[in-house]
Formats: sequence, C-alpha cells, structure tokens
Amino acid sequence: MEQRSKIIDCTIRDGGLVNNWDFSVEFVQDLYNGLSDAGVEYMEIGYKNSPKLLNATEPNPWRFLDDNFLKEIIPVKKSTKLSALVDIGRVDPEDILPRSESPLDMIRVACYIREVDKGLELVEMFHRLGYETSLNIMALSSVPESQLIEAFEMVKKSSVDVVYIVDSFGSLDPSDIEHQVKKFHAMIPNKQLGIHTHNNMQLAFANTLTALRNGVTFLDSSVYGMGRAAGNCHTELLVNHIQKPSYELKPVLSVIEKHMLEMRQKWEWGYIIPYMISGALNEHPRVAMAYRDSEDRDKYVQFYDKVTSPEASLAPASK
Amino acid sequence: MEQRSKIIDCTIRDGGLVNNWDFSVEFVQDLYNGLSDAGVEYMEIGYKNSPKLLNATEPNPWRFLDDNFLKEIIPVKKSTKLSALVDIGRVDPEDILPRSESPLDMIRVACYIREVDKGLELVEMFHRLGYETSLNIMALSSVPESQLIEAFEMVKKSSVDVVYIVDSFGSLDPSDIEHQVKKFHAMIPNKQLGIHTHNNMQLAFANTLTALRNGVTFLDSSVYGMGRAAGNCHTELLVNHIQKPSYELKPVLSVIEKHMLEMRQKWEWGYIIPYMISGALNEHPRVAMAYRDSEDRDKYVQFYDKVTSPEASLAPASK
Repeated sequence: MEQRSKIIDCTIRDGGLVNNWDFSVEFVQDLYNGLSDAGVEYMEIGYKNSPKLLNATEPNPWRFLDDNFLKEIIPVKKSTKLSALVDIGRVDPEDILPRSESPLDMIRVACYIREVDKGLELVEMFHRLGYETSLNIMALSSVPESQLIEAFEMVKKSSVDVVYIVDSFGSLDPSDIEHQVKKFHAMIPNKQLGIHTHNNMQLAFANTLTALRNGVTFLDSSVYGMGRAAGNCHTELLVNHIQKPSYELKPVLSVIEKHMLEMRQKWEWGYIIPYMISGALNEHPRVAMAYRDSEDRDKYVQFYDKVTSPEASLAPASK
Repeated sequence: MEQRSKIIDCTIRDGGLVNNWDFSVEFVQDLYNGLSDAGVEYMEIGYKNSPKLLNATEPNPWRFLDDNFLKEIIPVKKSTKLSALVDIGRVDPEDILPRSESPLDMIRVACYIREVDKGLELVEMFHRLGYETSLNIMALSSVPESQLIEAFEMVKKSSVDVVYIVDSFGSLDPSDIEHQVKKFHAMIPNKQLGIHTHNNMQLAFANTLTALRNGVTFLDSSVYGMGRAAGNCHTELLVNHIQKPSYELKPVLSVIEKHMLEMRQKWEWGYIIPYMISGALNEHPRVAMAYRDSEDRDKYVQFYDKVTSPEASLAPASK
C-alpha cells in the first residue's frame, strides 16, 4: 500500500491562506528543491484562479499562477511534479495551456458537494488538455449521505483520476476517516482516493495514516504543517514514517531550519485553542481566525461561550 | 467503553520534568479545582519519592510529596482523586501512610521490565495500605516479547489494579498501540489497562483514542500537553472528545488561559523537531533535550546527522 502512495505538499497553496501568499521566490525554489531531494512526488505551488475573475488589484503570483512565471522560477523540473488548485467559477479557460506547454502536471478542483457537476466540467476540460486531475470535495463532515450518493453517480462516470476526502474543518477523527474511506471506495471503486486533513485536534497525521492504511493513495501535507488556521498534516512526519526507499527526511528538515521557524514567528498556524474548539464543533475556522486577530485572542473561555451560545449558530459567519 | 474510562491528569508530575516542578501552590490549586470542575477523575500531583534516598539538597514539594503539605493545600477534596508516582529504589516505606490517613488515593509504580519483581513488591505494600495501584512499564517499545511474557506471569498473580502501556519515547503509532493493547489484554486478562503517551510525532491523542477503542480504561494526559520533551496527550482534547456527560471543557480552557500560555513562554515542551527525530528513532529524549539547551538548538540537520551517525548508537547518553 505504502509503495503506491504519493505525497502532495501543499505548503504554498494552503500555507498561502495564512500569509496571503507572501512567499519569496527563493523560498519557493528552496522548497521545490527540498521536496525533490526528499522524494516528495508532488508540490502544489498555488492556485490557478483568474485575477480578472477575482477582481484582483494586486499581483499575487502564487494565487494566480502564470505558466511563464513558473518556467522562469523553475527552469529545470526535477522528479517532483507540480500541481495547482482551482475554485469553481474562478477559472478562466483562456489561462489554461495544454499540459505539454505548461510546467504544471496536475490541476485539482476544489468544490462543495452541491457544485460537483460544475467541478466535473472543469475536470473534463483539464483532462482533455492532458493534466492529471482531482476533485476535492470540501466540508465533507457536513455532507448528507443522499447528496454524496447523487454526486458520486456523476463522479464515477467522469474522467477524474483522484477523488479527495477533505476534512476542511479538522473535525474528523481516525474512526470517521476509516468510515469515509470505506464509503468512498464502495461508491467509486474505479477512482483513486486522496486525503486532505487539518490539525485542529492534533489528528491530521493520524487521520492521514488511517487513510493510507485503508487504501488512500494521494496524501496532502505541508512542511511544518503550514496551512490555514490549525494547518495540515506535516510533510516531515509523512516522509519520516512512510516506508519508501525514495523518501529522505533531511532535505525537509533543512527547509524547516532555513525558513519555517522564521515564518512561524511571523505568521500563525498550528494547534491553537480557538481552532481546536472550531474543529470540535465542526465549524469553519473563519470565526476563530477573526478572533485570533482581535485583542481577545487568548480569551478561550469567552470564545467558547461565544461560539456555543444559541445565537452563534444563527450567525451566517459561523457556518 | 467510554463510560468506564478515566482520565489521569499528569500535568504536575510529568510537567515537572520540564520545569523541575517549579509550580506555585496557586497553580496546583487552580489545576485541582479546574480538573474537578471538568470531571477529570484523577490528578497525579507529583512523585512520592524520598528526598533522603535521592540526596535532595533543596525542597521540592511536588517531587517529594508530603501528606501534611497536601492536606494543607487541598483542605477539602472534591471528586477528583489524587495519585502519586514512585520509582523503584527511591521510596522510603516510612513515608507512606495508610490511605485512610492520606489525601492520596492511588500510588503508581514506574519501572523498567527488568525490575517488575521489585515494582510488584512496592505495589503489594501500597495495596496493603489501601491504595489503588498501577504498574507503569516504561520504554515498552524496546522490550523483547520473551521478557514481557515472563514479567506478566508475575503481574497476573499480583494485586495490582492497572497495568500501563507507556510509550516513553513517543515512538509508537496507532497500529503499534493496537497491537500492544491486544497483547496485554491476552496476557493479563484479569487486569485493567492504562495508556501513557508522548507527543513526539503528534500521535499522543490518536494513540490514546486507539487504546480507548481497544478497551484501555486509564488514560493519562496533561493540560495543554505539558510533559517532558514533546509532552503528553492533551487533557483538553480527551475531555472534549470522550462522550461522557460528566466532562466539561470550559474549566480546562480556563486553566490554559490563566496559566499554561505563560508557562509555555517560560518553559518548552511540545512538537519540536529534535523530539520528533528522537521519537522516530525510538530513543530516549535526553539527547534532544540537551541539544535544545545548547546554542545549536535549531540546527535540525546537524542534530539528525549526530543521532543517526554510526557512533551515536555507541554513546551511552543516546540510549
């Protein structure tokens, strides 16, 4: 099982949600080289959304990936493949070159369950252009079974290579993951599965291992866990733990030592009590993130009262 | 299963290994009240070793627990029971009052596999004095099966109430824990089991949940994970996750907010790369702890080279 598995490092893409993609070219290059030396199979180098469709007023190279820019900063590709994530309604088909002309190897589509049809339309386009594809179904912990069944009828017949179980809120535990993986395998036996976890309850690594043991092949992670709010499964833990001769821990340690400690001083992610609480409550972390930006950031009891009060569940921001 | 389980909070005892038990009386009282309000069943309030036998030159009330002192600081016991840990060869029987005269309810004996006979002698003494008892077999990840079988023949016939699986080096994953728990259950079916984890690879909580699911009833943890090196399973995660109507998260959050953030600024524990490495290598954290006290504390690649060099395994300090 472990030999077939692949790591997709999401440090730039999911970590960018922490620091608005304030990554230097040097860091991204060091990360790419480090991941390649470590034997990590994929690096998700950002979003390939359209700056026009998002009315962007400032350049943001990792949020609006451009093929020419990518060729410039990674002139020689090593063994690590490059992937990009897109959101429904934010992709301009004109921006997407055929894979043969792009440094990108894989394009992943993030969508909520109600938009799976639109997600699969994008998948088919990327597939026709030669890319590997995945469909990443977000907020899985809130999806009713009936919607999943309906969506999977479409997924089964599509060209998508990998279907992701995404624990967006960091609310699932290893038993939940095992249950989801078995359900996905039964419902879409012709698709490879992927797992994307968040570390709100310190279960991101354990959940990823559980998925691996149950046959999931695409494992998302970030170096030193850098990702939105509580962050993701740590790349260094996967590289260290998975018994694959091609994996080397040292190049990942080197990236952490050279860059991540300083970045962690500057920006915040990881196991932090308001994120633990939002994970436990199966809520989007945005309320907790706003709280961490306020003066009350360390008033945990007050935060807990706020999000568990009867009014909290009525506020649109809390879902 | 969950209804029978009990949490033993080890913040003072294992956390004392971080700060040489530099805890104020106010903190220990706040912790006791907080744990009681949270419904936590036990608080391990320190070691009951003998200052004489350890040639102590300074007072250290949580390392050398004294019954009169305990009665003074906790004049009225609430629902949370008190436990103490002892080490082989460091206990003076003269120090141990009958349970009826002591605030302590449980005495736990830490021992290596080769000293199980001596550990059980202490257990019998504490048992005769009326205490609940446990035998905590340390460094389990390095114990050969044959030694375990021999030791368990003695354990089976003893009066000990609980036998602990102790992942001293933080080197086990959920599959390992499941394997150990099944082995322990098969070999000593007449004993309750306990689990004590360390968080070197961010698996302490997941390992504890795995143990719980497999029938382990005594779950060790520390508030905000405070314990030696990478620390322990977090009490707040257990209180939040275990479905028991008596558990309340807020009082634990209150202790974290009032005390633990400041303590974490002052002292270091948790997921830190050299501890991750020592856990992954199944080594005692002492080399990593010394490294964290040196100027090279953040030179992770150098540390990795040091502990994985052929000479490292010959140095007595590394085992």
